[in-house]
Amino acid sequence: MIQFKRLALPLLICCSTPAVAEDTVGQRLASQGDTARGIPACASCHEPDGGGSEPIGSARLAGQNSVYLQRQIEHFRSGRRDNPIMTPWANQLTASEIVAVSDYYAGLRPATHASVPKGVDPRTGAELALFGDWQDRGLPGCVQCHGPNGSGVGEGFPALAGQPYAYLRNQLTAWMQDRRSGDPLGLMKGVASRLTKDEASLVAAYFAAMPITSGGLEKSGTPSDSAKHLPAASPTSAGLHSETIPELADIPAGRAPTSQGYFRPPARSERPDGPFGEMVALGEAIFRQTDTHPDSAPHVGNGQTCRNCHLDAGRLANVSPMWAAWVSYPAYRGKSHRVDTLTSRIQGCFTYSMNAQDSATGEPPDADSRTIVALLSYSYWLATGAPTGDRGIPGRGYPDIEEPAGGYDARRGEDVYQANCAICHGEDGAGARKDGISVFPPLWGPNSYNWGAGMHVIDTAAAFIRHMMPLGGSIALSDQDAWDVSAFINSHERPQDPRFTGDLDETAERFHGGRYDLYGTPSALDGHRLGAGTPAATAKAEGN
Amino acid sequence: MIQFKRLALPLLICCSTPAVAEDTVGQRLASQGDTARGIPACASCHEPDGGGSEPIGSARLAGQNSVYLQRQIEHFRSGRRDNPIMTPWANQLTASEIVAVSDYYAGLRPATHASVPKGVDPRTGAELALFGDWQDRGLPGCVQCHGPNGSGVGEGFPALAGQPYAYLRNQLTAWMQDRRSGDPLGLMKGVASRLTKDEASLVAAYFAAMPITSGGLEKSGTPSDSAKHLPAASPTSAGLHSETIPELADIPAGRAPTSQGYFRPPARSERPDGPFGEMVALGEAIFRQTDTHPDSAPHVGNGQTCRNCHLDAGRLANVSPMWAAWVSYPAYRGKSHRVDTLTSRIQGCFTYSMNAQDSATGEPPDADSRTIVALLSYSYWLATGAPTGDRGIPGRGYPDIEEPAGGYDARRGEDVYQANCAICHGEDGAGARKDGISVFPPLWGPNSYNWGAGMHVIDTAAAFIRHMMPLGGSIALSDQDAWDVSAFINSHERPQDPRFTGDLDETAERFHGGRYDLYGTPSALDGHRLGAGTPAATAKAEGN
Repeated sequence: MIQFKRLALPLLICCSTPAVAEDTVGQRLASQGDTARGIPACASCHEPDGGGSEPIGSARLAGQNSVYLQRQIEHFRSGRRDNPIMTPWANQLTASEIVAVSDYYAGLRPATHASVPKGVDPRTGAELALFGDWQDRGLPGCVQCHGPNGSGVGEGFPALAGQPYAYLRNQLTAWMQDRRSGDPLGLMKGVASRLTKDEASLVAAYFAAMPITSGGLEKSGTPSDSAKHLPAASPTSAGLHSETIPELADIPAGRAPTSQGYFRPPARSERPDGPFGEMVALGEAIFRQTDTHPDSAPHVGNGQTCRNCHLDAGRLANVSPMWAAWVSYPAYRGKSHRVDTLTSRIQGCFTYSMNAQDSATGEPPDADSRTIVALLSYSYWLATGAPTGDRGIPGRGYPDIEEPAGGYDARRGEDVYQANCAICHGEDGAGARKDGISVFPPLWGPNSYNWGAGMHVIDTAAAFIRHMMPLGGSIALSDQDAWDVSAFINSHERPQDPRFTGDLDETAERFHGGRYDLYGTPSALDGHRLGAGTPAATAKAEGN
Repeated sequence: MIQFKRLALPLLICCSTPAVAEDTVGQRLASQGDTARGIPACASCHEPDGGGSEPIGSARLAGQNSVYLQRQIEHFRSGRRDNPIMTPWANQLTASEIVAVSDYYAGLRPATHASVPKGVDPRTGAELALFGDWQDRGLPGCVQCHGPNGSGVGEGFPALAGQPYAYLRNQLTAWMQDRRSGDPLGLMKGVASRLTKDEASLVAAYFAAMPITSGGLEKSGTPSDSAKHLPAASPTSAGLHSETIPELADIPAGRAPTSQGYFRPPARSERPDGPFGEMVALGEAIFRQTDTHPDSAPHVGNGQTCRNCHLDAGRLANVSPMWAAWVSYPAYRGKSHRVDTLTSRIQGCFTYSMNAQDSATGEPPDADSRTIVALLSYSYWLATGAPTGDRGIPGRGYPDIEEPAGGYDARRGEDVYQANCAICHGEDGAGARKDGISVFPPLWGPNSYNWGAGMHVIDTAAAFIRHMMPLGGSIALSDQDAWDVSAFINSHERPQDPRFTGDLDETAERFHGGRYDLYGTPSALDGHRLGAGTPAATAKAEGN
């Protein structure tokens, strides 16, 4: 039996942070500095609790990831961060002092210092902070990487919540002006270049005013079992579960095509009041946090959400937007050998991409369940104004991508993955969660989509990767890289196809066999037959 | 307990037709005439089998309704039918001879004489014959009144199938030119005036070529039980159950607005091939014959079909067209206190308008049943090109109608009903069926919509009646007449509200009480409390 490989997670290094009391070197540097070497106490600028200072514009260090902090000290030394105050002191610290002081601050429980200049309404930046502006600028929301409420994710994505406003604004400006670098894949340059200076100030104000709700510790992989069996929320409690959505009535409700010429769904600010609007909001909440939302979680058997495959919560063209799905169904599908309504199509997403077989109920939601009604309402509302039946509406599905002349190579894809994908999805492909919420989806293993999902087919995933990954557009993979890394990802085990007949040959014959479908073929990585060693099968074998 | 009133049905008079052998007077006139009085044998022009003659252009009499035939002889005498050959002979017949010869021909089993001039493709007239042209001309299909395949319905609507082509064409021309009258409500003048002469020829050819499938006998009221429990048809057998739909690829597929400026759904000829098109066809078949179609019949507890309330099979503006429904749902509804999808909205139609509680299953079809998928597919396809979410799309629902200044009066409505409605819907409101298929829907009594259906509310039914009834537009009721007759219709008993709590006061309080909702109030016709004497309740009381 093939064992499912679980690698150690460097992403989780902060879990090994020593308790504060033991960390005398770090504590001493933080509170007293080293007068003999002319190093002042960190606290003199960053405040005794490590919360940062608004007048000085210094960062909150408390609760940040230790590896992230260590890297920043390295960046002051190397000049990647251009800071005349920090650089001389950073240059004096030894390697072990850098670790010690970083560990010290990572272990501090941060307090919230709300610090927004008068006259700035922190809610004004919420739309950009939470949702970005994918349609016109390819700009992801900050929380897409920095986690729910900007609480920080792993070593790559620091906490933004409760940072001093001046610090956040200055850093965004530094990225815009090329005075800061060294972040993963240069993502922040791509993001900051898409913001105006005024917008940067608004986004900074939004996070500066955000209460610090997380100690900075994160876990990866499985959503907590406790989150899976919550009682159903009342319809009036609909809203973006764990994400604060303010009223944004002043955001203009333009319905012109996007800057790329695609259909533009209504703005969130146009969502109507009353029970229908609440149902739409419930649909968006389920769409965003399918694996933990009390309505949908009992039907999700892995760590996936709808928005993992439908970016910008189903709004964005060329990543299977829901407005295009709404106008395209009912339709006959070869996969199901029947006319699917959008209801049964969505049930298919639960069955395959969200692996319902391993969920609490073992099934997708019923056709008349509140989950389905909410997802239909949300999709319908997103499609407002789109012509019914326009199955050729531009931006539907994923763009086609041709196989490179020289084919593809999963082993070559491993290098692409480790260089470009692992920072978010983990070296073991298990993704990342924060505060119980999925931030980066698992790509293989027991919490990923199963062998029946569309994304297991190489060209489908290659198209998605080529056009959308990594987020933010700071770099773009080549077609070749996208094919290679898609083959790498899909050469790993994942939950069994729910149509599994009990026989791999028969299942492969009946439901697979497409040119870019690796199910039933030997993995290019270790030679085992894909589909034969699903995590579930392994778990069962171990249980015997 | 109030007894449910059942009147004798003059519509069914042909059921009492004596057997041929006994009818010596009629038979003698038909085969020999009366030489002494200069009356030739009817057979000399109408042929020995009563099938009519193409060269002469004489009518098929065999199998026609006797009362219809008697009236035609009266019309030759009165000049309502302008026919120099028939008039002198008709004038000589005694009243008893008129009945005798009519009864004789009504009892003959007609044979089909296909008689279409060369070069005329009888299928070309099918679209007008079967479906009319409601959208641009307010023209119902011929079969709407003349019954499935034009086999004739009651004393008002003679059989068209298998009539000689020349006869049908000449009669349509006679109506166009005001040379024939005397039909119920002058309907045929309204219809014929909307046809071109060429179209009249094509329609005539269509029916001339139609095989005679019915002996002319009809029953009213309940669909036969045998039709209710047929096995489910395979998807590929979809089609207009008992109505032949030819391929009409040459009908232009214009998508301009209708002549009235309303949205125009795609033409039937545009229906795509393949499984989706088959599902659309299945949806239309279910829509047309909901109470007998094997898929939907187990969920229909009365004699209603979708198209009874949604004329032109859900295509026509201002009678709740399905294209408008498609773009209007999901939506919150006060009636259900929830966000309804089109699925649950359609289930509501089964629950109330089609009285599912008394059906074989006792329930509306499941949300993922083939019936629902087919009806959704049909509605979606009808809405092709309509803007998603346009709940204000012109032609949605029924037009508003204001209560007349002097109110309304159910007793006055009875006169309106008997003068204008009874010819089709029957004096007892039980409607008419032909060959097992609903032609004119029941309006009250055990086979009508129940007390939960929208149509039981006076203003809703008044709007429908005012704008759509009688079909064909030869006459129009006044607002006052429409309100009065709606009050009359809805002052009769009908199946119980399925939300009935066991207590009339409580049910009326919780689910009724609108200004134009008579449930729980004393009937203006006989003073009994409406809802207290439902047919089902009566039946149960009788059973004890």
